[in-house]
Amino acid sequence: MKLLEDRIEADGKVFPGNILKVDSFLNHQIDVALISQLGREIKRLYSDSGVNKILTIEASGIGIACITAQFFDCPVLFAKKSKTKNIANAVYRTQVHSYTHGTQYDVIVSEDFLGKDDKVLIVDDFLAEGNALLGLIDLCRQAGAEIAGCAIAIEKGFQPGRKRVEAEGVRVESLAIVESMSDHGVTFKKQ
Amino acid sequence: MKLLEDRIEADGKVFPGNILKVDSFLNHQIDVALISQLGREIKRLYSDSGVNKILTIEASGIGIACITAQFFDCPVLFAKKSKTKNIANAVYRTQVHSYTHGTQYDVIVSEDFLGKDDKVLIVDDFLAEGNALLGLIDLCRQAGAEIAGCAIAIEKGFQPGRKRVEAEGVRVESLAIVESMSDHGVTFKKQ
Repeated sequence: MKLLEDRIEADGKVFPGNILKVDSFLNHQIDVALISQLGREIKRLYSDSGVNKILTIEASGIGIACITAQFFDCPVLFAKKSKTKNIANAVYRTQVHSYTHGTQYDVIVSEDFLGKDDKVLIVDDFLAEGNALLGLIDLCRQAGAEIAGCAIAIEKGFQPGRKRVEAEGVRVESLAIVESMSDHGVTFKKQ
Repeated sequence: MKLLEDRIEADGKVFPGNILKVDSFLNHQIDVALISQLGREIKRLYSDSGVNKILTIEASGIGIACITAQFFDCPVLFAKKSKTKNIANAVYRTQVHSYTHGTQYDVIVSEDFLGKDDKVLIVDDFLAEGNALLGLIDLCRQAGAEIAGCAIAIEKGFQPGRKRVEAEGVRVESLAIVESMSDHGVTFKKQ
């Protein structure tokens, strides 16, 4: 999606270790007008998929998920990072490995809000190693929900996330796929 | 706001310890159509305030902040919970006491995205003790940003949050103010 690629080129910042900072418009400060265009494109990609729920993970997926959900006329459910092993309510629970922080954490969704009648679109801001998406896929499967696919703003195409998610039989659509990054800028995979 | 009060009465759940669970539509599953109506009302309340940035705190404020920002044609900035005391980037930092968890945590915003040209509307899902809002007010003041006020979905009117925020000279608007809660339901303060 050229609009997003142009914005990454203009405002993204590359740091050593293949870090791409887009916190001026995507995941700290959020340009809601831009995100609305992304949501419209996600709706186009999944227009015939019967999506009736959007699932994301806190915190940085929530903004794009909510704005995208407006195009689907459906609710958002966000998986919460859980600090406690035991909570009173009935939840689906999975573990996500954080590549960035080198840790594991639990994420949960309430059993009340995900079930076999749901056709879920998983939305997130980034795809790199794919661990968050695999966790969300696991939650959907525990709940017996159908997965329409994943919609991602920015994919790091040189990391194995897409391959791992597609190996689960889940469709992946990314609005911008970064092929390489350097001090000289970012190159995108042609879609 | 009657629409929100009706929804709380229909779908909110009261638990011992003055806990009001609204996670079916506000802060776990998010009814974006409802939130859009809340955003429209917040815009009406602050229509002449020159707001050019909406500030919230992760995670459950992000959805309502993003949808509300669409009515103001302005970006959202969300304060992040910080696990590390030292990070490379220049940030404003404050401490927030969590009444629910009995802990303190640091929240940060980048200096790049908050400054003296900003007129900030602080948006959050809940107001009870007011600690999160006081932290966000502190961040704005560190940055020299002007504060238009706070807009809250649900206020617990029997807790001291509003008084503490107003004591800072900051306007507070809540779309529903819970006066009391019991097994028999919720009563609202007339506005």
